[in-house]
Amino acid sequence: MKNEFVKNALGKSVPTEINGQAAIPYMGVNKYEAKGNVYAPKIKCAANYPKDGNKILPTLKSALLKAGLSNGMVISTHHHLRDGDLVANEIFKIASDLGIKDLVWFPSASFPCHEAIIEYLDNGTISRIEGSMNGALGRYCSEGKMKTTAVLRSHGGRYQAIQDGEVKIDIAVIAAPTSDPFGNANGLYGPSACGGLGYALGDYQYAENVIIVTDNIIPFPCFPMQVVGNFVDSVVVVDKIGIPEKIVSGTTNITKSPDRLLLAQMTAQFCDEAGIIKDGFSFQAGAGGTSLAIGVYFHKLLKEKKMKARFAVGGSTKYMVQMLEEGYLEYILDAQTFDLEAVRSMRDNKNHFDISIFNCYNYHSKGNYTTMMDVLILGATEIDTKFNGNVVTHSDGYLLHGIGGWQNCAFSKCTIIPIPLFRDRIPVIKDDVTTICGPGELVDVIVTERGIAINPLREDLIDKMKKSKLPIKPIEQLKEEGEKICGKPAKANLSDEVVAVVKWVDGTVIDTVKKVL
Amino acid sequence: MKNEFVKNALGKSVPTEINGQAAIPYMGVNKYEAKGNVYAPKIKCAANYPKDGNKILPTLKSALLKAGLSNGMVISTHHHLRDGDLVANEIFKIASDLGIKDLVWFPSASFPCHEAIIEYLDNGTISRIEGSMNGALGRYCSEGKMKTTAVLRSHGGRYQAIQDGEVKIDIAVIAAPTSDPFGNANGLYGPSACGGLGYALGDYQYAENVIIVTDNIIPFPCFPMQVVGNFVDSVVVVDKIGIPEKIVSGTTNITKSPDRLLLAQMTAQFCDEAGIIKDGFSFQAGAGGTSLAIGVYFHKLLKEKKMKARFAVGGSTKYMVQMLEEGYLEYILDAQTFDLEAVRSMRDNKNHFDISIFNCYNYHSKGNYTTMMDVLILGATEIDTKFNGNVVTHSDGYLLHGIGGWQNCAFSKCTIIPIPLFRDRIPVIKDDVTTICGPGELVDVIVTERGIAINPLREDLIDKMKKSKLPIKPIEQLKEEGEKICGKPAKANLSDEVVAVVKWVDGTVIDTVKKVL
Repeated sequence: MKNEFVKNALGKSVPTEINGQAAIPYMGVNKYEAKGNVYAPKIKCAANYPKDGNKILPTLKSALLKAGLSNGMVISTHHHLRDGDLVANEIFKIASDLGIKDLVWFPSASFPCHEAIIEYLDNGTISRIEGSMNGALGRYCSEGKMKTTAVLRSHGGRYQAIQDGEVKIDIAVIAAPTSDPFGNANGLYGPSACGGLGYALGDYQYAENVIIVTDNIIPFPCFPMQVVGNFVDSVVVVDKIGIPEKIVSGTTNITKSPDRLLLAQMTAQFCDEAGIIKDGFSFQAGAGGTSLAIGVYFHKLLKEKKMKARFAVGGSTKYMVQMLEEGYLEYILDAQTFDLEAVRSMRDNKNHFDISIFNCYNYHSKGNYTTMMDVLILGATEIDTKFNGNVVTHSDGYLLHGIGGWQNCAFSKCTIIPIPLFRDRIPVIKDDVTTICGPGELVDVIVTERGIAINPLREDLIDKMKKSKLPIKPIEQLKEEGEKICGKPAKANLSDEVVAVVKWVDGTVIDTVKKVL
Repeated sequence: MKNEFVKNALGKSVPTEINGQAAIPYMGVNKYEAKGNVYAPKIKCAANYPKDGNKILPTLKSALLKAGLSNGMVISTHHHLRDGDLVANEIFKIASDLGIKDLVWFPSASFPCHEAIIEYLDNGTISRIEGSMNGALGRYCSEGKMKTTAVLRSHGGRYQAIQDGEVKIDIAVIAAPTSDPFGNANGLYGPSACGGLGYALGDYQYAENVIIVTDNIIPFPCFPMQVVGNFVDSVVVVDKIGIPEKIVSGTTNITKSPDRLLLAQMTAQFCDEAGIIKDGFSFQAGAGGTSLAIGVYFHKLLKEKKMKARFAVGGSTKYMVQMLEEGYLEYILDAQTFDLEAVRSMRDNKNHFDISIFNCYNYHSKGNYTTMMDVLILGATEIDTKFNGNVVTHSDGYLLHGIGGWQNCAFSKCTIIPIPLFRDRIPVIKDDVTTICGPGELVDVIVTERGIAINPLREDLIDKMKKSKLPIKPIEQLKEEGEKICGKPAKANLSDEVVAVVKWVDGTVIDTVKKVL
């Protein structure tokens, strides 16, 4: 990238142009207010669609051709099929066979199964990925092999970028576990059932062309319509859109690691002592082993206190479903379902609602759910003594994770990050994180097995925890304890070349990812 | 209106400008394709909304003032509270007290209870109504008393006009039987329960400001969210938004009139003989007495034949619910619920879905439900020998009815209009209808008590009915029989002044309504 760099509000040097598009430096939390209007797709006309509502085309290739697939287009996919997705790779195989070049892949997330995409990055079919890059794809990007600059966004930021026309999707390909010929679709039924399809909302609302790919076609009407057929151009029926056991776990399990169980227990105790766990409270915890265990501790505490949580936002699992079905949780608002029990629950439980990213995470709407939530549990690869969080790169500089909903969730009333003090003998709390994904002012509490640090901005929490027996310590002390055990970590060996930028929830640039030497 | 007039594709003289906005003459069915993009509202920012999600303001007046209520604004309301609506009049009372002038009222429909609006038309608070005008309001318009030109649209055309930015809503006021403080709302629960709220979809999606008015506030989250709180600016809690017994009938009843029962029976027999009633067929019939009776006949026929209908589009009533619950109908897709049984069913039956006007009727989307439907029953005030239909004016020229979904529904595979040959000794079939609301090419069959006319364009239907014992006759013959009994009807006594225009589903002008002398 050859262009101007400026320092943003966090002192990070960020480009003023990304892939030829002007970029705005991060200005601080709630500091930048976008002007202008949302993106306005072309007016469509029902007369151009089959009168009988049958939009089925014979193959994905024919549907892509009908959509005008051509060089440089932006192709979006969703990640509800997770590591079992058979559709995304297929799109780029077709494009590659057709000799198409310089596509932008715009997934809502990527998984190990998408390693095959490297072939299409190598041969020029794909110019870059705008979206989360785990494992091999991240490593590829980190090594500076991607033709243009990757753009990393939070889940909510992805919706914001679509809505505001920052990313104009030419073709959205939506893998759908069940669809009718009109394109009404959902993820609740069929051999590849995955629960909701809420990550595809912006894609089908704003994309110029929308293709549904399904392995379970049913007669009109397919309800509930998580995808609304009135936005769909064509429907393709294939043998298999996914590998069921890789789409949802048969079962999710809480961590058995004593260290992580300790983190979970300390987090739950903190929430209890801080008065967060009360009748009608709300929470969100991810589906990682520690987070699941925290949910289970919450459940236990509510049981003891004979209290109910009002709502929890999913990623949902059987543990959350148990809480709902035992009556300790009134509502699950769910943007993705992680196991079979959660899929069943979304199908059958009246109080387990399918929601979209738009509802909980889009900063450019009239409010988000996350600011209402009493407690939100997040992870991090690194935290620094300013409480800034990194979730995308490791300390060696490699881009190995997506942002997910992290930035969006950090807006909660109490954002807690339970993390081990070190991983593989590398301290997790540092002077400065390798990549800032979110500013410290939004991170309230860090829970480690050797102590809990409360953000000095949260005087109220510090006050509440004054008499606690929990090991509350300044974050600098935690950092020092980590470094005492592992030694001061080496700085990542990075070049000046920017291979990816990290956008904040408002579309501004909060940091960059540099090429690893 | 002082401007140019041109002849449209039906030979009707229509203005090229309406209230200062350019207008396009009707060009024929599926002939005009709009260019350009849909309307793009301003980008919003979550930081400007309460962090705790509580958007409650003390009064409707304070919410209107916060929304910047001022002269000339477009104010929209929905009609789900029907003749029991207590909210719409209140808006304009407040505006009138504030001395606001020249508002445009943009309701999805109006009812006798809205007669009070005349006061605000008279005193200049409201300049015109864009939307259906029944009874007193229509008479007021017909007499040329409205300051600017009324614009009549179908339900689908109303969504199209909002979506395409033809009508820019400044403030949408949504009366909601249940809401949470964030503005998630539905019509399923509460003392003013009305079922769905699907007519308000375009309003809250595209309006600059959205105000929810409710008499049943519940803690977040209110689900299902028929109104999505992320689009809502403020919530107002009042004692009563509607009069329950005027919102939904305690019970709807089929006609007891022998004449109308005959029409219903003939219509059902026609459908049966024409092969329309078959396993998996789909239908839509309104909630008028005759239509209800037709539904009951369909139910009976399916029972006899041991068949099931795949889906019916509501306006739903207890009769449709019975059909669903007895297993002769698989799905109800429902944009409005007419009685308490239907409200209960939408709440409790998994196969009774709340849909919006966007799904079934918006011509500017990627397909409509209506073109898929096997048979659709409509009404009319007049039909002419070209099968053109009038649903808004009476033969004396008075504007007394709204278009409803009529134009949108006419796109079905078989559109049937059962009507008496005369009403109040005035023939219903004429040489030319007073106002063309839809072109004859979309109307397939006219059923009268004295004979059935099939549109000559439908050679297939004529062929199928060749051996029928039903009294199939040319429409000219029906017209003559009517005139023989009642005499040739007098022409309406109209001036040249256009008081209202009728828009077609694509936004073009199909006809005008003239001032009655």
